[in-house]
Amino acid sequence: MNRKVATTVANPSSEFQRIARIATILGQGRGPKIKLGIGDDAAIIRVGKESLVWTTDSSVEEVHFRRELMSFGDVGWRSFNAAVSDVAAMGASPIAALSAIELPRSLRDRELYELVEGQSAASKALKCPVAGGNLASAAKVSVTTSVLGRASTPLLRSTARPGDELWLIGSVGLAAAGLACLTRSGSPLRGSDADYCVSSFRRPVARVTEGKRLQGRAHAAIDVSDGLAGDLGHIAKSSKVAVLVDERALAGTLAPELLKVADKLGRPAMELALFGGEDYALLASGPRQKRPRFAEVIGEVTEGTGVWFIALSGRRRRLGGAFDHFSRHA
Amino acid sequence: MNRKVATTVANPSSEFQRIARIATILGQGRGPKIKLGIGDDAAIIRVGKESLVWTTDSSVEEVHFRRELMSFGDVGWRSFNAAVSDVAAMGASPIAALSAIELPRSLRDRELYELVEGQSAASKALKCPVAGGNLASAAKVSVTTSVLGRASTPLLRSTARPGDELWLIGSVGLAAAGLACLTRSGSPLRGSDADYCVSSFRRPVARVTEGKRLQGRAHAAIDVSDGLAGDLGHIAKSSKVAVLVDERALAGTLAPELLKVADKLGRPAMELALFGGEDYALLASGPRQKRPRFAEVIGEVTEGTGVWFIALSGRRRRLGGAFDHFSRHA
Repeated sequence: MNRKVATTVANPSSEFQRIARIATILGQGRGPKIKLGIGDDAAIIRVGKESLVWTTDSSVEEVHFRRELMSFGDVGWRSFNAAVSDVAAMGASPIAALSAIELPRSLRDRELYELVEGQSAASKALKCPVAGGNLASAAKVSVTTSVLGRASTPLLRSTARPGDELWLIGSVGLAAAGLACLTRSGSPLRGSDADYCVSSFRRPVARVTEGKRLQGRAHAAIDVSDGLAGDLGHIAKSSKVAVLVDERALAGTLAPELLKVADKLGRPAMELALFGGEDYALLASGPRQKRPRFAEVIGEVTEGTGVWFIALSGRRRRLGGAFDHFSRHA
Repeated sequence: MNRKVATTVANPSSEFQRIARIATILGQGRGPKIKLGIGDDAAIIRVGKESLVWTTDSSVEEVHFRRELMSFGDVGWRSFNAAVSDVAAMGASPIAALSAIELPRSLRDRELYELVEGQSAASKALKCPVAGGNLASAAKVSVTTSVLGRASTPLLRSTARPGDELWLIGSVGLAAAGLACLTRSGSPLRGSDADYCVSSFRRPVARVTEGKRLQGRAHAAIDVSDGLAGDLGHIAKSSKVAVLVDERALAGTLAPELLKVADKLGRPAMELALFGGEDYALLASGPRQKRPRFAEVIGEVTEGTGVWFIALSGRRRRLGGAFDHFSRHA
């Protein structure tokens, strides 16, 4: 609807077709108080003189997380950060959150409270209090977090301009590497580098401070939840531009832990960086002279369409535009 | 959390104990912008000079609805009205909604779009546009709707005063009767009265207009989602008062369709009225001279505690305070 899609569904229509159809049925989310409806990280609602940024995000057992790969505390922390990340991506400060938890009858009190403790820790870390919520029975655990934020000028994904630099804030590929460590056939990969990646997977941090500082600097922004290639595709498609990712520049941003773990796993680090999701890094575009110190250049925006990868050899290849990303069974 | 609980969970702790514990872990939902945190139909957030009323509500397959008892269009309509009803209960005007849908891979496009058509119809009827949302895979269908509204002076459940009349706005028991018609052992009960009840069950309407008109008149309000007895209990407990329901007065408000259907089902209409939920009537309390014409008196508020039922005979019996309501497997 108004944000990247959480999962791929094996169905006649792709997620993107479905969302387009849903948007049509719902009149594109237009309304007198709605400045921005369906199609970005969050909706923008006008209240008095304020622009409110508003999102909802679900984390579902056996789709977004599996109990054997993370604790309930991790589930609470991670789902909360994932939702706040949508608000951060628009340069907004979180005001508050609501939490709707679905839980099976078999879930123990201890497990529920551990999940809420994870939410509470994230809530404090992100200065985003939980104002309320809902509990409901269900077959599987799911956490749907709605977050309200405010921003004087929210950053959109649809306003990148040719000539912009592409900025990456935070590191990518670590969460995917962490998941790969945990699910390696035979036995999990261990060691301090693996632990670092696993921690990135279980305990991502929404980049609220950096998001706010992008206001007045970046022309466009999005959070990297679907994977860098997919989210670059969202910017390219909605801004009607081409985005060029430079392998050399992107390689320079990769965490040493990722390089070491990728090597041990026998997987290209660049693949994890481009297609792994859920690091909740920020991706932005803006003019060189306004680049903040915490942003690293990974490419550029030009006239055209699509996402292009410039290999070390200088060869260009198309990464594809807005494609359905991989089903991630964490 | 901030609202009545959707279902009963067979677990060591009751829902109310769980919510109390969750509220403790989350610091009661306090925050600089939060005027009202966990414990009412919706949270109240201060933005500039505005009071925003904000809620989230989940409708889960095989807990809140079953496919054989309603269409996907009904699921969309009903879940949307249920969420908006929380905002109506606070006397607020809806601004917009976000919809987070979880759906199994087996769900057909047609079924998903039918659900969204139901949401869209409700959205238009209630003048509450859908500004965005989220899609995620899951084992079962669930719809979590977050609604933002505004009110100059939101009505709480915790501000009923001794001396108030108890007001009912809308009819109760019809939805429970409709469900009973559909699930009658042997074969469903049919006929125009049964159809009316079934329609109340499948297509309830949030009482936004009446809720707004209660502002400045009522001292307290809540929507009847858990059943009249349960929601009276919420008012009594949070307002620290006793509420007295008068059987004669309540009987006078019952719809003729309910009386006829209850008779055919062999169930006391008063039981359906007191313990059936999901009609989304409003329950309020206020001074007699301020009673609006659309409200019917069903009892009074006094000093004391608990919910009391004054039978036709004049005998009083305690209906119980904040008890876990019946598990409703619709």
